[in-house]
Amino acid sequence: MTLSRPITQAAGALRDRFREVRATSLALAAPLSAEDQCIQSMPDASPTKWHLAHTTWFFESVLLQPHAGGYQPFDARFLYLFNSYYEALGPRHPRPQRGLLTRPSLDEVHEYRRQVDDAVVALLEEGGADWAVIEPIVTLGLNHEQQHQELLLTDILHALSCNPMLPAYKPANGPALRLAAVPPAVRWIERAGGMAEAGHEGAGFSFDNETPRHRVLLQPHAIADRLVNCGDYAQFIADGGYQRPELWLSDGWAAVQANGWRHPAYWLAQDDPRLRFAGPSSQAAGDWHVFGLNGVRPMEADAPVSQLSFYEAAAYAEWAGARLPTEFEWEAAFDAPGISQMTGHVWQWTRSSYDPYPGFRPMPGIAAEYNGKFMVGQLVLRGGSVATPAGHSRPSYRNFFPPAARWQFTGLRLAKDI
Amino acid sequence: MTLSRPITQAAGALRDRFREVRATSLALAAPLSAEDQCIQSMPDASPTKWHLAHTTWFFESVLLQPHAGGYQPFDARFLYLFNSYYEALGPRHPRPQRGLLTRPSLDEVHEYRRQVDDAVVALLEEGGADWAVIEPIVTLGLNHEQQHQELLLTDILHALSCNPMLPAYKPANGPALRLAAVPPAVRWIERAGGMAEAGHEGAGFSFDNETPRHRVLLQPHAIADRLVNCGDYAQFIADGGYQRPELWLSDGWAAVQANGWRHPAYWLAQDDPRLRFAGPSSQAAGDWHVFGLNGVRPMEADAPVSQLSFYEAAAYAEWAGARLPTEFEWEAAFDAPGISQMTGHVWQWTRSSYDPYPGFRPMPGIAAEYNGKFMVGQLVLRGGSVATPAGHSRPSYRNFFPPAARWQFTGLRLAKDI
Amino acid sequence: MTLSRPITQAAGALRDRFREVRATSLALAAPLSAEDQCIQSMPDASPTKWHLAHTTWFFESVLLQPHAGGYQPFDARFLYLFNSYYEALGPRHPRPQRGLLTRPSLDEVHEYRRQVDDAVVALLEEGGADWAVIEPIVTLGLNHEQQHQELLLTDILHALSCNPMLPAYKPANGPALRLAAVPPAVRWIERAGGMAEAGHEGAGFSFDNETPRHRVLLQPHAIADRLVNCGDYAQFIADGGYQRPELWLSDGWAAVQANGWRHPAYWLAQDDPRLRFAGPSSQAAGDWHVFGLNGVRPMEADAPVSQLSFYEAAAYAEWAGARLPTEFEWEAAFDAPGISQMTGHVWQWTRSSYDPYPGFRPMPGIAAEYNGKFMVGQLVLRGGSVATPAGHSRPSYRNFFPPAARWQFTGLRLAKDI
Amino acid sequence: MTLSRPITQAAGALRDRFREVRATSLALAAPLSAEDQCIQSMPDASPTKWHLAHTTWFFESVLLQPHAGGYQPFDARFLYLFNSYYEALGPRHPRPQRGLLTRPSLDEVHEYRRQVDDAVVALLEEGGADWAVIEPIVTLGLNHEQQHQELLLTDILHALSCNPMLPAYKPANGPALRLAAVPPAVRWIERAGGMAEAGHEGAGFSFDNETPRHRVLLQPHAIADRLVNCGDYAQFIADGGYQRPELWLSDGWAAVQANGWRHPAYWLAQDDPRLRFAGPSSQAAGDWHVFGLNGVRPMEADAPVSQLSFYEAAAYAEWAGARLPTEFEWEAAFDAPGISQMTGHVWQWTRSSYDPYPGFRPMPGIAAEYNGKFMVGQLVLRGGSVATPAGHSRPSYRNFFPPAARWQFTGLRLAKDI
Repeated sequence: MTLSRPITQAAGALRDRFREVRATSLALAAPLSAEDQCIQSMPDASPTKWHLAHTTWFFESVLLQPHAGGYQPFDARFLYLFNSYYEALGPRHPRPQRGLLTRPSLDEVHEYRRQVDDAVVALLEEGGADWAVIEPIVTLGLNHEQQHQELLLTDILHALSCNPMLPAYKPANGPALRLAAVPPAVRWIERAGGMAEAGHEGAGFSFDNETPRHRVLLQPHAIADRLVNCGDYAQFIADGGYQRPELWLSDGWAAVQANGWRHPAYWLAQDDPRLRFAGPSSQAAGDWHVFGLNGVRPMEADAPVSQLSFYEAAAYAEWAGARLPTEFEWEAAFDAPGISQMTGHVWQWTRSSYDPYPGFRPMPGIAAEYNGKFMVGQLVLRGGSVATPAGHSRPSYRNFFPPAARWQFTGLRLAKDI
Repeated sequence: MTLSRPITQAAGALRDRFREVRATSLALAAPLSAEDQCIQSMPDASPTKWHLAHTTWFFESVLLQPHAGGYQPFDARFLYLFNSYYEALGPRHPRPQRGLLTRPSLDEVHEYRRQVDDAVVALLEEGGADWAVIEPIVTLGLNHEQQHQELLLTDILHALSCNPMLPAYKPANGPALRLAAVPPAVRWIERAGGMAEAGHEGAGFSFDNETPRHRVLLQPHAIADRLVNCGDYAQFIADGGYQRPELWLSDGWAAVQANGWRHPAYWLAQDDPRLRFAGPSSQAAGDWHVFGLNGVRPMEADAPVSQLSFYEAAAYAEWAGARLPTEFEWEAAFDAPGISQMTGHVWQWTRSSYDPYPGFRPMPGIAAEYNGKFMVGQLVLRGGSVATPAGHSRPSYRNFFPPAARWQFTGLRLAKDI
Repeated sequence: MTLSRPITQAAGALRDRFREVRATSLALAAPLSAEDQCIQSMPDASPTKWHLAHTTWFFESVLLQPHAGGYQPFDARFLYLFNSYYEALGPRHPRPQRGLLTRPSLDEVHEYRRQVDDAVVALLEEGGADWAVIEPIVTLGLNHEQQHQELLLTDILHALSCNPMLPAYKPANGPALRLAAVPPAVRWIERAGGMAEAGHEGAGFSFDNETPRHRVLLQPHAIADRLVNCGDYAQFIADGGYQRPELWLSDGWAAVQANGWRHPAYWLAQDDPRLRFAGPSSQAAGDWHVFGLNGVRPMEADAPVSQLSFYEAAAYAEWAGARLPTEFEWEAAFDAPGISQMTGHVWQWTRSSYDPYPGFRPMPGIAAEYNGKFMVGQLVLRGGSVATPAGHSRPSYRNFFPPAARWQFTGLRLAKDI
Repeated sequence: MTLSRPITQAAGALRDRFREVRATSLALAAPLSAEDQCIQSMPDASPTKWHLAHTTWFFESVLLQPHAGGYQPFDARFLYLFNSYYEALGPRHPRPQRGLLTRPSLDEVHEYRRQVDDAVVALLEEGGADWAVIEPIVTLGLNHEQQHQELLLTDILHALSCNPMLPAYKPANGPALRLAAVPPAVRWIERAGGMAEAGHEGAGFSFDNETPRHRVLLQPHAIADRLVNCGDYAQFIADGGYQRPELWLSDGWAAVQANGWRHPAYWLAQDDPRLRFAGPSSQAAGDWHVFGLNGVRPMEADAPVSQLSFYEAAAYAEWAGARLPTEFEWEAAFDAPGISQMTGHVWQWTRSSYDPYPGFRPMPGIAAEYNGKFMVGQLVLRGGSVATPAGHSRPSYRNFFPPAARWQFTGLRLAKDI
């Protein structure tokens, strides 16, 4: 038996943060039934239950097994079932079959979380392990879980969007407010260019892909003071945006044709048969409806457009006579006077491919597989969305997705050369 | 309001049978959680919940809506969601996406069943409808539901087989009995051939594909007195059956290579990693284990081999110097002295393609889509399996599946020319 | 050295027939350039050059290597390159890559044919081999080559149909004669049914799948005196045949939707952009044009409809209130008074799946792989087409293709119950 | 009629260069038969005949039709058949079906080239058109044709590699010289970093994607003095490089497993069955053989490794404890003392995604579709290969391919941080 010792202030703070982040995951899942939490609507998405278990697996396999003396795994099979992409930790359950795991049940996954939570809390409170070793792992695990909290929302939203009844994740409390139909004009903030710094530095947490902080050279440019909104985007559609190949990258035009894209992923045209299923509130007249966490609602012209692929973002920018900002232009604009909607609305596609920073080295150990090995074929997104956990955004944060992905809360902001 | 009238004896009997069959479906689903009942493991299979709802939809859309005055559908959206292949009844939810229907919940489907059950019982008891019209529909609906009861079992078994933990549908009560390792030799029952009759006739229910009863000409042949069992089949495997192209139909050999078949669908070789996950009872030594409704169990040599494709059945017969019986040889043997295991074990592949009988006409009305339109590219199976509801087997019953299907309880019996 | 001996009359006749059949293959290829003869337009089809080489390979590997003492293969690599589906003769070049074989060149294949022809003729003339062994092989090889002569035509026609210029295999000498727009009405020939015999017997050559000759039981029925023609079929299209699911088998309707079928494979609607490319003669007004061996021509109403899948044939019959004949009804009608167009126009889909006859045994030896191993998933066609070599048709001949195949000269004749 | 006028010196020089480049294309095709020139071995590759016609189409549709008064197209259908990716010029023949164009024949394509060549030469000599308009188009057309000359070689090499006989494009004149088995050690050239310039400037031709010339910031680094060679790469293979997921990008590892990659695309292991087919010269002992333009030859240890995907290049660099250079590090090293093999051997994968330069604008008019619309999902390669036409390389040239492409002459040079 370990004698109780006074817990250090740092350990106490980390324990409290641990409890808070872990509770948030359960709170996000709370509006969903066990059935809802089990299904997987496409290979890119994961079931809610899997997110709950996988984030727990991370603490168990990376923290508790190597560093908590005497820890017994909850169930040896879970080490296989809930590994995601860590080749170094052995074979994995095939990603497209995550939706077939009715067992373990949701109740068992809750029990799994409780055992691991108790063991992590005990490890932090008892102080028996090397703080310099466990603190970074717990912090990484919490940031990892916050990433999955966002994915949990985007993935369940996609799953619900596949149900022709378009059920709401969480019904809205009041009617959708139709805002000014004419969105305010964009104002352009001019930037002189020159040397700047980019990337993370300092004491706070960051992922390895944000480092090292380094100097970058910016060209003169202007950046829009606000996001592109639904009203803007509806004009692009009305102007034949989805029928004009000259606006599109070659792969983008191929995707438009192969998938029959005609509007953002969760928009419903006036003649969509699912509007009959979606209840009386959405029967109101109007050109477009949008499916979101609150179900189907009439389109709001000044809400940021979302659930766009990079291809659509780039085509819109071409149509608007502008371009997407580079990730460094975006980062340099973070504190710019007059700029708005930098975080908390939608992730913003940039024109930067997801390449390593000069001098980049992956984190040592298991975390080496975390970010670096995805550095090809993806684009950088900056900012953060309505689904991003509070405190999880920062100017140097680099999110990334393949150019055809459109089930995230992803939109855009314009830039142009001057 | 309809005055209460004495219910006729026939209507009372049908009502009782209705209640019994409907209750059986729920009893079959009872060992499964809501999560289990929601998932779909391949496009060919359907979720348990979908089976429960679709069989209910049949009574609602074919019986109640046209024939029960004043009946209000439980939910207008269900008419779309739970239609299966009836083109005449309008658009259908895409089959491969049945597993995404977390809503309606299982509870709502239970409620749906209750409303429809009450309305059908009332229709039978109140006698307001034309008996000559509704009796055949109810009887067809019950036979339809019995077919789905069997599919419910085979589909959930497939879903559970995709979980690396191989959970049991229903744990067995006792240890598997290892039977005589050397199965008894087959005895051949000789048949002289000549004119015979095949197909259904008389008062009892049958599907349209069993009619009209007609004369057929049989050649002299011999038929095995018992099914091919696991011990027999293990010898075929040990003799290189899955490596010898000359034993296989061309499409069958292609399927072996494309899918990597090495044994029946639910057999586990000694080195299968899932045996580590499947609990202590299956750790016993032995060449093969078999996954079934009671979970993973050591292979029993004299149990009929099951979960075989037609291709495997035909290759086995070739290896054994025999052939599969035609469907008419099978039917003629039904009452043959000395023959066993004709029903209640596995469906038996025949060498007969699923073609229409001479003079076949589909049932009129909606049921026209029931069987006839599948009469190409499939093989006839005869008999019935452990999953077939009691009272649902008869000598003229024609089951059918494509030649590569191997998730049903399907096996074989040998025949040969004499 | 073999002394010259007088050649027997039978051997001389076989030698002459050999020369004639072999010359016919070259004559069929003569209108085609080396480029034309090299390409493969889909995995199901083969290049002309490959047909020329494969039929030669058959004589080399099955006849000369085992039975002509001292024979040296033309090129050891050809034994691999030009094997088709004979697993027993070792590995094969993958079927979908036959079109990549620019080497050997067409000239080399011609040389290959000359060497093999000379050796076969010498073997027949010198009489050194056992006549009872080599006669059946040569006869089989010639029938095999005749089958490939027909495939050569259907395959090159498909390849040319993929060229947007729709070049003619052989330009027609004169204008297409527009025949009577109203085709003559079908007359029904009634048949009483009863016992009949089917299958090959006697001294002439047949394939194994036509044997053994056996008794069959026919039901009373009527069979049409002529084939369904283009005028008939155009009415089916005009009546919405391709938009009415109730007319189609389930798999057929799926094929219609997946492939966008709207008419037979080689018909061109009036607005087909390729009509601009196809030269002045086809600019004439009219609802339909048809691409064939003579290029694009206006549809002739009383020409038999061709290039139909089984699914389309069955849907047409359903629409016409009739059905397809069984293969035995067809065979019994072969000599019926008043019946026409039994051979020489199009192969005729029957309602019979391609199953083995009672007592069927494959030919011994290598030929065992010839027909038997394809006896699943295909339908029987009877008759013979414009592309079938003279003397290659007989009442018992069983051609077979999967139900979706539509690049052959395939049409239909109606039957019905009486 | 245009009166003959003295041709300007600039026009004369351009006419001579036109003749030379056009003649080179025919010379490259000369070793190939009409059959060879017709086939297409994968959707990414094009037939030789298509390259010959498409480069001609460019001059006809972009130069002659708009700018040569009275020019009549050779064949209106060719405008459709030989368009490649120019959406603005109307519909296109589907890329994967280019190999089905046996018509027009090779002779007709030669005739097409002659007519277009004559018309272009006449346009240059007669001086009737605006020089400021036509000079850039002719120059672009010639650079375009030079790009296709390289593709012609890589595409036909791929086609020949699909023939199990592995025929040589051009047999070598002498035996392959086995060079020193131990390749010389790499020497590292250190670079201090700082500001540099990149991109094209000045009077010579460049593509739009090389502009504008702009300042870039380099980090301190070292770059290898030579390319990675076959001897180096064989060590990577011997060290289990293709079995160690930790060396690979995630998509790269997936490609290794999905495609069964075990070595560069055209390497043959000692037990490759095609070595039996490839003639006596290649029977020599040795670990590896390599297929190339001269057929199959024993691997030469100090020849640059080629036909590598980006994934393999990146995994090799990881294994070697280094990384790939950025495209700007590569460009800055172009004139570095002591550096070798910068052009003329293989294209060199860089770690830079193919993004637009700051201030990039596509060329106006039709050429707008030339490069810009491919700027996503591809990686930059620098240098030039043995197949690159003389005079077609320059320091600022940006070649680009998707990361899985491995049928080009693509290799790598190492770099590292200091």
